[in-house]
Amino acid sequence: MPPRNLKLVLEYDGSAYVGWERQKNGVGIQEVLEEAVLSICGERVVVEGSGRTDAGVHALGQVASFALEKDIHPNKLRLAINAVTPADIAVRTVEVVPAEFHARRSARSKLYRYTVLNARSPRPLLRFTSYHVPRALDVEVMAAAMTAFEGTHDFTAFAREADRKKSCVRTILEARLRVNDDCLDFEVEGTGFLYNMVRIIVGTVIEVGVGRRDAASINALLESGSRTRAGYTVPAHGLALVEVRY
Amino acid sequence: MPPRNLKLVLEYDGSAYVGWERQKNGVGIQEVLEEAVLSICGERVVVEGSGRTDAGVHALGQVASFALEKDIHPNKLRLAINAVTPADIAVRTVEVVPAEFHARRSARSKLYRYTVLNARSPRPLLRFTSYHVPRALDVEVMAAAMTAFEGTHDFTAFAREADRKKSCVRTILEARLRVNDDCLDFEVEGTGFLYNMVRIIVGTVIEVGVGRRDAASINALLESGSRTRAGYTVPAHGLALVEVRY
Repeated sequence: MPPRNLKLVLEYDGSAYVGWERQKNGVGIQEVLEEAVLSICGERVVVEGSGRTDAGVHALGQVASFALEKDIHPNKLRLAINAVTPADIAVRTVEVVPAEFHARRSARSKLYRYTVLNARSPRPLLRFTSYHVPRALDVEVMAAAMTAFEGTHDFTAFAREADRKKSCVRTILEARLRVNDDCLDFEVEGTGFLYNMVRIIVGTVIEVGVGRRDAASINALLESGSRTRAGYTVPAHGLALVEVRY
Repeated sequence: MPPRNLKLVLEYDGSAYVGWERQKNGVGIQEVLEEAVLSICGERVVVEGSGRTDAGVHALGQVASFALEKDIHPNKLRLAINAVTPADIAVRTVEVVPAEFHARRSARSKLYRYTVLNARSPRPLLRFTSYHVPRALDVEVMAAAMTAFEGTHDFTAFAREADRKKSCVRTILEARLRVNDDCLDFEVEGTGFLYNMVRIIVGTVIEVGVGRRDAASINALLESGSRTRAGYTVPAHGLALVEVRY
C-alpha cells in the first residue's frame, strides 16, 4: 500500500519553543511532532508546516502534512499524538488527504491575529497571549492605518535585514482591527508573510495609535522600503497563527 | 488624618498559590498583597478579601479592602503594587471608599464561572483556565439541571466533611450554562458559597450531561444531604471568581 498523506490541524502555546522549525538552539514544534510519530508508528517522517511560526508565537490552527506508511486510524493517531506530546501542543484534527496536498505549497492564505491588551493594568490571565499597552490608543486611526496594508506591496520596510536581499513583495488580503473588550485584535490575512512582518506592522500601527505618526503616512513608508522608518517589533507572545486556508 | 479605607479589584492566575488566604503550606494571594503594601507604604495592613478562593482558583474580579494611614494617590498605589507583585497578580482598580465598606461583609453576591472545554482534543492555550471533558455532553439537560440549584437550599450534599457540622444553607441567585464556542461556562451567582461547592455542582451537572443521572434528580439530591450521592469535585483550574457585587 502506498503511504497515505495526512493533514493535521494543530494548536500550540509557543512560549517554550524556538518556533515551528527544527533548530539547533532549542526545541521546535515540528521536531516534537516528528518524534511523536516516530514513537507511535516507528516511522521517521518529515512533518511539513504551512510555514514557520517564530519563537514564542502561538497557533490556534497551524496546519501540517506528512506521508505515513503505517495503517493507523486518523483518530487513533490524533489521540496517540496528544497522549505523548506535552500539554502545550495538541492535534485538533487528523484527516487523510489526497497525495497532492502539501501544508505549505497548497495553502492559499494564512490568518494571523496579534492581541494587544489596551488597559491601564495588566491582566494576569492574558499575560501569555497578549501584549500589554497601557497608553491610550486611538482605535479609529489605527483601523484606518491597518487598511493601508491591504493589497500587494513591497514590504521591505517591514522585513528584517536577512530577508531584504530577496523579493519582499507580499499580498495582504485583509488587515483589520477588532475591539474585543479590553483587547485590540490586529488581524492580517495574506498569501505570504516575511519573518517578523506582522509584528512590525502592529508596532507601526501602535505608533499611529499614540499619535507618533499619521495613518496616511503608511503608504509613503511602504514606498520608502526603509526599515528604520517603520515601527518597532512588538513581542512574539501576542501573536497567533489563527487559520490556514486552502 | 484618620486612615483611608481602600477598595481593590484584583485579577489573578491562581495556579501558583494556595488560595486567597495566608497559609503555612504555601503562598496566599492575600499575603502577596500585604507584603506589597508593606514594601510600598511601610505599613503592615490586613487586606480583607470578599472571600477565600481555593488553591489554584483564578479571579477576574476579586475584591479586597484595607485601611491605610499613608497618604498615597490610589492610582499611584495601583501602579506601585503592580510593579512589585509577580505577573500572575494584578490590581485592576484602587479607590477610596467609605469607612463602613468591607470587602467581605458588604458583599451582596459573588459570581463564579467554571469553564469546561468540551472538545475531542485538548486546547493548549486554554489549559490553565479550563477543564477538558472530551466526552459528548448534553447541553440542554445540563442547563435544566443548573436551574435546580437556584434559590435557597441546604447544600450539605455539596459540602466537604469539615463544613457539614455548620449550616450549609446558601442562596443561589442564578445558575446557568452558557455555550461559548468549544467551551461551556457554568455561571453561579450566590450570596455565599461553601468550600468546593461550585466545583461539586459542576461535577454533578457533568454527570447529568453524560447521562449518568437525571436533571430531575437534583432536587432529591439536595434534600438527601448526602455528599456521596453528589458528583465528583472538578479540578480547581477551571474556576474563576468573576465579580463581587455590592
